[in-house]
Amino acid sequence: MIRSEDLSLLVDFYELAMAQAYRSEGMTETAVFSLFFRDLPPHRNFVLACGQQHVAEVIRDLRFSASQVARLASLNRFQPEFLDWLRTFRFSGHIHAVAEGTPLFPHEPLMEVEAPIAEAQLIESLVMNYVHLESVLASKAVRVRHAAAGRPVVDFGMRRMHGVDAAYRGVRAYRLAGLAGTSNVLAGLDFGVPVQGTMAHSFVQAYPDELDAFKTYARLYPGTTLLVDTYDTRRAVHRIVAWLQANPDVNIGAIRLDSGDLAAEARDCRAILDAAGFTGIRIMASGGLDEYRIARMLADGVPVDAFGVGTALGAAVDAPALELAYKLTEYAGQPRMKNSPGKQIWPGRKQVFRQRGSDGRYRGDIIAGREEVFEGDPLLRPVMKYGVIMEDALTDLDTQVKRAQVRIDDLPGYLKTLATSEPFPVVITDYLKTLQRETLARVHH
Amino acid sequence: MIRSEDLSLLVDFYELAMAQAYRSEGMTETAVFSLFFRDLPPHRNFVLACGQQHVAEVIRDLRFSASQVARLASLNRFQPEFLDWLRTFRFSGHIHAVAEGTPLFPHEPLMEVEAPIAEAQLIESLVMNYVHLESVLASKAVRVRHAAAGRPVVDFGMRRMHGVDAAYRGVRAYRLAGLAGTSNVLAGLDFGVPVQGTMAHSFVQAYPDELDAFKTYARLYPGTTLLVDTYDTRRAVHRIVAWLQANPDVNIGAIRLDSGDLAAEARDCRAILDAAGFTGIRIMASGGLDEYRIARMLADGVPVDAFGVGTALGAAVDAPALELAYKLTEYAGQPRMKNSPGKQIWPGRKQVFRQRGSDGRYRGDIIAGREEVFEGDPLLRPVMKYGVIMEDALTDLDTQVKRAQVRIDDLPGYLKTLATSEPFPVVITDYLKTLQRETLARVHH
Repeated sequence: MIRSEDLSLLVDFYELAMAQAYRSEGMTETAVFSLFFRDLPPHRNFVLACGQQHVAEVIRDLRFSASQVARLASLNRFQPEFLDWLRTFRFSGHIHAVAEGTPLFPHEPLMEVEAPIAEAQLIESLVMNYVHLESVLASKAVRVRHAAAGRPVVDFGMRRMHGVDAAYRGVRAYRLAGLAGTSNVLAGLDFGVPVQGTMAHSFVQAYPDELDAFKTYARLYPGTTLLVDTYDTRRAVHRIVAWLQANPDVNIGAIRLDSGDLAAEARDCRAILDAAGFTGIRIMASGGLDEYRIARMLADGVPVDAFGVGTALGAAVDAPALELAYKLTEYAGQPRMKNSPGKQIWPGRKQVFRQRGSDGRYRGDIIAGREEVFEGDPLLRPVMKYGVIMEDALTDLDTQVKRAQVRIDDLPGYLKTLATSEPFPVVITDYLKTLQRETLARVHH
Repeated sequence: MIRSEDLSLLVDFYELAMAQAYRSEGMTETAVFSLFFRDLPPHRNFVLACGQQHVAEVIRDLRFSASQVARLASLNRFQPEFLDWLRTFRFSGHIHAVAEGTPLFPHEPLMEVEAPIAEAQLIESLVMNYVHLESVLASKAVRVRHAAAGRPVVDFGMRRMHGVDAAYRGVRAYRLAGLAGTSNVLAGLDFGVPVQGTMAHSFVQAYPDELDAFKTYARLYPGTTLLVDTYDTRRAVHRIVAWLQANPDVNIGAIRLDSGDLAAEARDCRAILDAAGFTGIRIMASGGLDEYRIARMLADGVPVDAFGVGTALGAAVDAPALELAYKLTEYAGQPRMKNSPGKQIWPGRKQVFRQRGSDGRYRGDIIAGREEVFEGDPLLRPVMKYGVIMEDALTDLDTQVKRAQVRIDDLPGYLKTLATSEPFPVVITDYLKTLQRETLARVHH
């Protein structure tokens, strides 16, 4: 398993090769790299930016130990001077970033890294890997939360998440997107997210009679949720009702449905429970759920009180990748850009202003040069200076979750539907357009 | 970041809750859990099973430290007896598994866990998370390799992989699927996979003139690959040709195309290079490639010698999840199964026999009871006994890669195309069918 002290070697080879080349050429001027995406992923009306805090901590702590330098030397591509430089490496640059849980649109910088070019180049893949994971997962989770329309959604995704790092950091991203809890014990404990869980079919199967399984859970976990679909859902609920009627002290909080026609079963189970007076026992649904199925059930008035979502969240199945780009936009004080067909770049350091309409909702963004000033909330703030994380950039998760909810809630309604919406209005300033034209003319000398 | 010693808490809450219930009820008999999938993911003709070795190591080392037990106690759901049991926990069971890099089909056990039921239940999500990641990534990579038809494919996926664990373990899975190399330095070094990489556009942009960037790389890295599409691909290649003609000592191995119309640019670049006599300079293509684009380019005779693939591999974008199930099939010597609509299970301990036809290719599988004997290669072998990994289960990666290649190469050709093929013939023995009928009759008492 990968260890945190080995993250410095979790680098794409070309970053080391380029860093050595910069060093060997004496190219030590400051570079500005911008982290952004050109297009929204399919089925997304915005990307929920996440992962900035984790990535800042990782960059701050990045070191190359003697044994790591020796391993790099074994590749026979690095010169002693460069290996010496790695031995004393510390990231010395600045980072600006949008706050975690900020909805973003194409070409808006999620993060800008300013550092001696070799340093900024070296962290490229690590920055992208960290931000990509958390933003992809949060951008899916926020849709599921919107579909659930206020009903709690619990993350059951650990088994489908891509590895243990995803299973861990993903829970924090889900929380920023507004999920109510997680089944993942470690992540729940570490991030302060409510830990929840019921029982598996195996537990019911291990007993000769499923009612005995329910009785054990009711005794050990008062207020528990019983999984009723192992054999015959309606029969199980009828038997639970009879048992509860004979034992009024037993406290069952909910039943869970995990397979079959969830809508029909939820209606029947609700009717069985209500007819017996158990109107307070809630119904949780899980099993192959995603935002579309949840929205349809609720639109049809299916009586479900909470949702457990696994696969759809865990692998963000309909958009598991975000085409993040980490592009050089300035070097040695001079704006830079590449000119590949269909891959536009806005040069220089930037700021994004998010403006509200008369209804209080956000109505549009302006992507501007860093020194320009417009009305609206500036989204990019300093997170790191000279390799040190700014004190006010480190906030507890609950505060960040509340902030993120405001940023999401204040989006116009058309962005929060499950359908692909018209684009949110984002304009580029004349300053940036002129800078792009001039830069292009210069590199095409 | 998650630490290996914390993996024991990377558990879904319900597994701990169930384990406590089993313990509290004195249910300590042996359970058999089967890890399998019911349906192939979209766009897959088989799943390449991977991750078994990593998961065996993780299970072997699973412990609950005093501080971890204290953290669990803080959830106020666990009794002292159960927490005491966790303190001395070691996995004491047996594991059978197919070898890594084995192509599998629906309902074939990838792994069977036999252990006291609380132990087997406790490792559920960890087993699934480990195997899911590596199998999902390997199952995508093997398609890309087949599309490349013998040309090397290099993994550039780190930035799109879901977190650092995926970026690390994924490289091993890609290797088992037959990829030639990786850009990921740490994973390459640790797993002995060739580490490769060229340059980014930023490197070219950092120089006032791109030819200077090329000259630096040629000097530092003889035989290097030059990225030629930053501004104007054909112009860049013409300038390289003129420079090489004037400097016959310079050694350039390849050029890389990363954007635009790769087919047209590859043809033009090949023509420019060949016309100048540089027939030995190869062309590498990257940038939004997947198995379909690679296959189309090669079918069209586009002169590309190697491929770099990132996003498509990294997030396995067209099938990022595999619906692995970890199901109780036996408890206390008695076959078990659940009976949810559309979710068939075959009870008991099993074996899979893979049979060859007269052409030497595999022609079909038999899913049998563990004690049945049929012609063909038995796929499930003991990997762990009494919590100890079998010595012959630990083989070096190169040996495993060679074995996996045979297993893949010997599949019938129709499974190795990119189109969705007819299903591979898999039959269930009469013994298992009878056992299923009898078990169903018993649980429906």
